[in-house]
Amino acid sequence: MKKHVLIGIVGLFLSLPAILPAAATLDLMPLPERVTLAEGQFRLDAAFTTVVTGPAEPRLYSAATRMLRRLSGRTGLFMTQDVITASTRVEQPSLTITCQRPGKVALGEDESYSLTISPQKIELHCVTDLGGLRGLETLLQLLQADAQGFYFPALTIQDKPRFPWRGLMIDVCRHWLPLEVIKRNLDGMAAVKMNVLHLHLSEDQGFRIESKLYPELTRLGSDGFFFTQTQMKEIIDYADERGIRVIPEFDMPGHTTAWFVSHPELASAPGPYTIERRWGVFDPTMDPTKESTYKLLERFLGEMASLFPDPYLHIGGDENNGKQWNASPAIQAWMKRNGIKDNHSLQAYFNSRLLKILSRHGKKMVGWDEILHPQMPKTIVIQSWRGPQFLVKSARQGYQGILSNGYYIDLIQPASFHYLNDPVPADSALTPDEAARILGGEATSWAELVTPETVDSRIWPRTAVIAERLWSPASVRDVDDMYRRMEILSPRMEELGLTHIKNYEMMLRRLTNQQETSALRTFTDVVEPLKLYARHSQGVTYLQHSPYTRVVDAARPESMTARAFASHVAAFLATPSSPEGDTVMNQLAVWQENHARLLQIMERAPAIREIESLSQDLADLAAAGLQAAEAIQEGRKLGSDWAFSKQIVVDRAKKSRGQVELMVVAPIARLIQAAE
Amino acid sequence: MKKHVLIGIVGLFLSLPAILPAAATLDLMPLPERVTLAEGQFRLDAAFTTVVTGPAEPRLYSAATRMLRRLSGRTGLFMTQDVITASTRVEQPSLTITCQRPGKVALGEDESYSLTISPQKIELHCVTDLGGLRGLETLLQLLQADAQGFYFPALTIQDKPRFPWRGLMIDVCRHWLPLEVIKRNLDGMAAVKMNVLHLHLSEDQGFRIESKLYPELTRLGSDGFFFTQTQMKEIIDYADERGIRVIPEFDMPGHTTAWFVSHPELASAPGPYTIERRWGVFDPTMDPTKESTYKLLERFLGEMASLFPDPYLHIGGDENNGKQWNASPAIQAWMKRNGIKDNHSLQAYFNSRLLKILSRHGKKMVGWDEILHPQMPKTIVIQSWRGPQFLVKSARQGYQGILSNGYYIDLIQPASFHYLNDPVPADSALTPDEAARILGGEATSWAELVTPETVDSRIWPRTAVIAERLWSPASVRDVDDMYRRMEILSPRMEELGLTHIKNYEMMLRRLTNQQETSALRTFTDVVEPLKLYARHSQGVTYLQHSPYTRVVDAARPESMTARAFASHVAAFLATPSSPEGDTVMNQLAVWQENHARLLQIMERAPAIREIESLSQDLADLAAAGLQAAEAIQEGRKLGSDWAFSKQIVVDRAKKSRGQVELMVVAPIARLIQAAE
Repeated sequence: MKKHVLIGIVGLFLSLPAILPAAATLDLMPLPERVTLAEGQFRLDAAFTTVVTGPAEPRLYSAATRMLRRLSGRTGLFMTQDVITASTRVEQPSLTITCQRPGKVALGEDESYSLTISPQKIELHCVTDLGGLRGLETLLQLLQADAQGFYFPALTIQDKPRFPWRGLMIDVCRHWLPLEVIKRNLDGMAAVKMNVLHLHLSEDQGFRIESKLYPELTRLGSDGFFFTQTQMKEIIDYADERGIRVIPEFDMPGHTTAWFVSHPELASAPGPYTIERRWGVFDPTMDPTKESTYKLLERFLGEMASLFPDPYLHIGGDENNGKQWNASPAIQAWMKRNGIKDNHSLQAYFNSRLLKILSRHGKKMVGWDEILHPQMPKTIVIQSWRGPQFLVKSARQGYQGILSNGYYIDLIQPASFHYLNDPVPADSALTPDEAARILGGEATSWAELVTPETVDSRIWPRTAVIAERLWSPASVRDVDDMYRRMEILSPRMEELGLTHIKNYEMMLRRLTNQQETSALRTFTDVVEPLKLYARHSQGVTYLQHSPYTRVVDAARPESMTARAFASHVAAFLATPSSPEGDTVMNQLAVWQENHARLLQIMERAPAIREIESLSQDLADLAAAGLQAAEAIQEGRKLGSDWAFSKQIVVDRAKKSRGQVELMVVAPIARLIQAAE
Repeated sequence: MKKHVLIGIVGLFLSLPAILPAAATLDLMPLPERVTLAEGQFRLDAAFTTVVTGPAEPRLYSAATRMLRRLSGRTGLFMTQDVITASTRVEQPSLTITCQRPGKVALGEDESYSLTISPQKIELHCVTDLGGLRGLETLLQLLQADAQGFYFPALTIQDKPRFPWRGLMIDVCRHWLPLEVIKRNLDGMAAVKMNVLHLHLSEDQGFRIESKLYPELTRLGSDGFFFTQTQMKEIIDYADERGIRVIPEFDMPGHTTAWFVSHPELASAPGPYTIERRWGVFDPTMDPTKESTYKLLERFLGEMASLFPDPYLHIGGDENNGKQWNASPAIQAWMKRNGIKDNHSLQAYFNSRLLKILSRHGKKMVGWDEILHPQMPKTIVIQSWRGPQFLVKSARQGYQGILSNGYYIDLIQPASFHYLNDPVPADSALTPDEAARILGGEATSWAELVTPETVDSRIWPRTAVIAERLWSPASVRDVDDMYRRMEILSPRMEELGLTHIKNYEMMLRRLTNQQETSALRTFTDVVEPLKLYARHSQGVTYLQHSPYTRVVDAARPESMTARAFASHVAAFLATPSSPEGDTVMNQLAVWQENHARLLQIMERAPAIREIESLSQDLADLAAAGLQAAEAIQEGRKLGSDWAFSKQIVVDRAKKSRGQVELMVVAPIARLIQAAE
C-alpha cells in the first residue's frame, strides 16, 4: 500500500522540488495546488497550542477551537488548551494562524492559504480567515499515526481554489430533511472546502420555508415539515461560520404545486390543489399573465431577499412542461395580445419580471438552463443540468454559469464519473475570458429516494471528489489515487456526525429483523441501486411515503468490494500464478456459500425476500467463477459447452431484483471467458 | 430460544386465563398489566389502514401516522395509507383507535388503554389520547415476522401505569447536548412509555437556556451553547406530541457558577467568576441574604414560568457545601440578626422565598432531597438522590416524592441493579395513603463524561428497564426475562434515530485509526467503564474539553458478551459434558488469540496503547481458562501449584487500565478454581 501511495504522490508532484521521505503518504482531498514535502515530522502531544494573529473574523477562532477538539477526539490526547479566542496568549505556540484581513463569505472572496509544517512548529498564513478555515481542514487531513503517536508530516503547501463556486444543492422538498441533516452536511462540505449550500426550498411535494407574510404556504403546503425563519437564520449562521454561502431556490414557474395548495389563484388552471405525493414532472405552473402573481412574488421574494444575505437567489425555471399554459384560453389570448409566440418566450417574460423584482431587492438571479434567453441580461447565472455543452455555449454568449450536469449524485453513478466531469472540459476551446465565466459547479442531491436516514450515504463520500474537481488543478485526474484518498477520507468524515457509514449496518440490522447481519452484508456489499431513473420503471411506484428502508436503500451507490474484486481478477488474469488467484477464489467461495446463510435469515426476515433469487444467482455465479478460477490457475480449459452453460448463469445474474443489481457479474464473466 | 421465551411468558402470566400458542413470544418492554393471548395472528400487508374515532387531540393523529411510517420502514411494505387525520374515512379499517376524550399532558392524566388483536382486526381503546400513544407503542413492539411475512399475535392487553411520574433527567450543562439529542431521546422515552423529561438547565459549567430579560446569562455563561426560547418551545411541543411533560431545573443556591459569570453580585463571595471547567462540587453559592438576589430570581423565574407550561418547576437545591456562607461575615451577621442557626436553615429560608416566587407564578416546587425541611409546605415534591429511605421518610411526613437514587444511569451500573430498585420497596411498610405520595421516579443522565456522541449509549437501553419498573406491576421482576426483552428492544430503538448502537462501531473505527475493527471490538466487547465515580480517581483529570472518544467511552455500560459468557460457564460447570463446554472454549480461544491481532493494529493506532497490557491480560487469562476448561471437560485436575500460578494472572487482570475493567475475570476464575 505504501509503495502504491508513494507512486501516486510522485506522479502528482513530480514537477515540484520535493524531497520525498521513504514512506511519505498524503491523504488529502481535495489535493492542494502545490505540496513540497520536507524532512521530519511535527509530533502532536497534549501541549499542542494554537494562536490566531492578525485581524480575523470570530469564525476563525471558533474554527481553530473546533480543530483542537477534533484533534483531541481522534487522538485521545487531553489537550491543555481550551477555547481559542482573540485574547489567547501562548508562549511559543505550536500552530500560529496569521490572517491579513477579515474575510467575507461571498462569491470570489480570497480563500488561499499557505501551510508550513516543520518539526518545531506549524504556520498557517492566509489573506482572509476563509483561507484559514480551508487550511485548518488540510491540517486535520494531514494527521498521521505510527506506533509512537500522532504527527503531521513536515511540508509546505500553497493552495487556492480553481473555481470560486463549489456547491452542494440539497433538495429538502421531495423528502423533508431537518436542521440537523443540513448542519452535519455543512460540516462535511467544510471538510472538503466547498463554499455554497444551495437549498431547494419549494417543490410540487412541499413548501419548506416559513413566510411570515404568507404563513399559509407552509401551513397547507408542508405537512408541518419546514424551516422556520429562525431555523434558517441558524443554518445561515452555521454555514457562515464555515465559510459557506447559502443560496435559496424557489423553483418557478413549474414545480409549484405546493404553493397552489394555499394559493390556487397563482396557478394557470383552477384548483383545488393538494400536495403532490408522486415523483415526476407535473403540470401545475404559475400563471405569468396575471399581475396578481407578481404582486405576491414581489412581497414573498422581498421577504426572502432580506432573510438570505447572499446576493444570489435561485428562481429554478426548469421542466415547465407548458401544458397548463397550452390549455388555458386566457393565457393563449394574452400571449397573442402581447406578441409572445411560444412558451419559452412566455417563461422568458416571466423571468424578466422576476429579474426586476430581484433587482429591486438587491439580488442577482440564478436559474437552471431554461432561463437562458436572448432577452435575459448578462448578470444572471446559469446552472446547467442539461450538459457542459450548454454551459460552454452560454459562456460564449457572455453568461456566467455553474455546472451541475454530471454532478447529479442522486443518480447513483460512480465517483470516477463525477470526478472526470470538468466544468471547463479540456476540449472546450474557450478563451480565457469566456472560461472565467464558468464559476464552478454544484453537486445536486435530489430527494425523491432519500430520507434523513439515507441521504448522507448518497452525498458522501462521492461529493468529496466533486469538491476536488472544483478546488484542485484541472491536471489532478488520477482515478485510482482519487479512490484511495476517498476511502481514507470517508470514515474520517464520521467525526462530523455524518451517518453515511454507520447507518448501513443499522439498516441491515432492521432488514434482518435484528438477526446477525453478516450474510446480508456480504450480499449487499456487492450490489448497487439501479442508476439514473431506472428505479422508477421496475413496476414499483415510489411515493413520498413509501418505505426507503429496503436493501436498495441500504446498498451503497458504489460497491468498493466489487471494485476491489474486479481489480484482483484483472491482476489474476494477467498473472495466473500470482497470489491474487487465492484472493479471488476465497472471495468467490464466500459468495458461493452466502446464499444458504441468507436463506436461514430470511425465515424471520420477510423484508429481504425480494432479493432471494438474486442472492441465489450470486451463489451460482460464484460457483461458476470458482470453477473457472481453478481451471485458470491450473492452466486447464473448460471448453465451450461449459462456458455456454455458464453464460446462462451470467445472463440471469445481470437482471436486477428489488431494484438492485449485482456489481460482480462482469469480472466473473471475464473469468468464465478466460477459462473457456 | 423460543422454549426459553415461552417459559418466561408462562411464568409471568400463569395466573391469566391465557391460551398460549405453541411458540408464543412477547417481547414487550415495559410489560403490560394484563396480557391474554389468543389464537391466531393479524397478518400485516400494504393495505393496512388506521382510523381514529372519538374526540382526540391532534397528537393522536400524528402518532398514528408515525406508527404507520415505522411499520412501513420495518417491513418494506408500500403502505397505501398516507397521513392519518380527523377526516380519514376508511371502510373496514385494520386498526381502529377509539378515544373517549382529549387528554392533557399533565401529572396524573389517564394513560390507560386496552388493545385487542384478532386475526381480522385490531382495536385500541383509550380514555385519553395519551393512552392511545402508549397503546400504539405496544402495538409496534408486538410486530413479529416469519417466513410468510409480518404479523401481530392475537391477544388482549389491558394496561395502565403503576406510577404517574416516569421521568428521565438530562443534564445539558456539564456537556452541552443540542436539540436533536433531546428530540431523539424524547422518541426513545415515548417508546417505553415515559412521561417526564426533566432538563437540568443551569450548572457551574454552563447556563443553557436563553433569558430575554437577562441575555447575559447565556452570552457569558454558555460558550454559545444553549437553547433559545424558540428551541425550548420546539422541545416542549415535540414532547407534548409524545405525551411527555417537560420540567426545567434551575439548580440553586449551589451549582451556580455559570450564573455568576455575568452576575457576580448574586454570589456569596466577590467575583469575578468564570465558567467552571472541572467536575465536582464547588463553592460558589447564591447569597440568600440579599434582596437583590430575589429581585432577579423573581423576574427570571417569572420568565421561565411562562416559557414552561408544566405546573412543576425544579429548583435543584443539592450539594450546597456552605463554604461561601461560612466565609462571609455579612452572611454570618445576617443569620445571627435573623435567628437562623445553621446553613440548612438558611437554605430553607432561601427555598421558602423561592416557593413564594413560584407560587406567584402558578408553579409548584420540585427539589432534591436537601429541600426537605420542616418549614416547607406539603405541596413540594422531593426528588430523592440520596436513597429510598429518604423518600419513604418524606412520604411518612406527608411529602410527595420521586425516586432517583438507584436510577443514576451515568454511574454505569448494570440494568438489573436499576431494574430491581423499587420506588416503594416491598419492605417499606407504608400505608396506602403514604405509598400514594410516591409518584414514581426519574433516571438521571448526568453529563460529566458524556457528549452528543456517547450520551445515547449511556441512556439506552438501560433506561428502558427503569421505565418498566415505573410502569409495570411491582411483581414483574424476572431479571433474565428483562435482559432478554431489553436486548430485543434495544436495536429496535435505532429506528428512532438513537445512536446507542451505531456509534460504537464508529468510535472503534476512529480508535483504530480507520483500520479493521474486529480485534478492538473483541476486546471492547468484554470491558466496561469504571463504575460510580471511580473514573475520576485514576490519576486522570477529566475536564469539560477532555476527549471522550477513548476505549472507555466506546465501551458499553454493560457487557452482554460477558453476561452471556458467565452463563455459559455456569452451565458448563454444572454439566461438564454439555455442549456449553465447546461454546466456552471457542470463546476463550478467540480472546487468547486476540491480543496479537490488536498489537498489529496498535502499530498505527496510538489511541489504544493505553489498553495494551489489559489486552495482554485478557489473552493470558483466556489461555489459563482454556487449560482449565479442557481439564474440566476431560475430568482432570490441574492441581494447586497450577491454580496458584494462575491466580496471579487473575489478580493482574482485575486491575483496570485506561479506566476500563475486564468483565470476564470472575467466570474464568471460576473455571480455574473448578480445575484445581
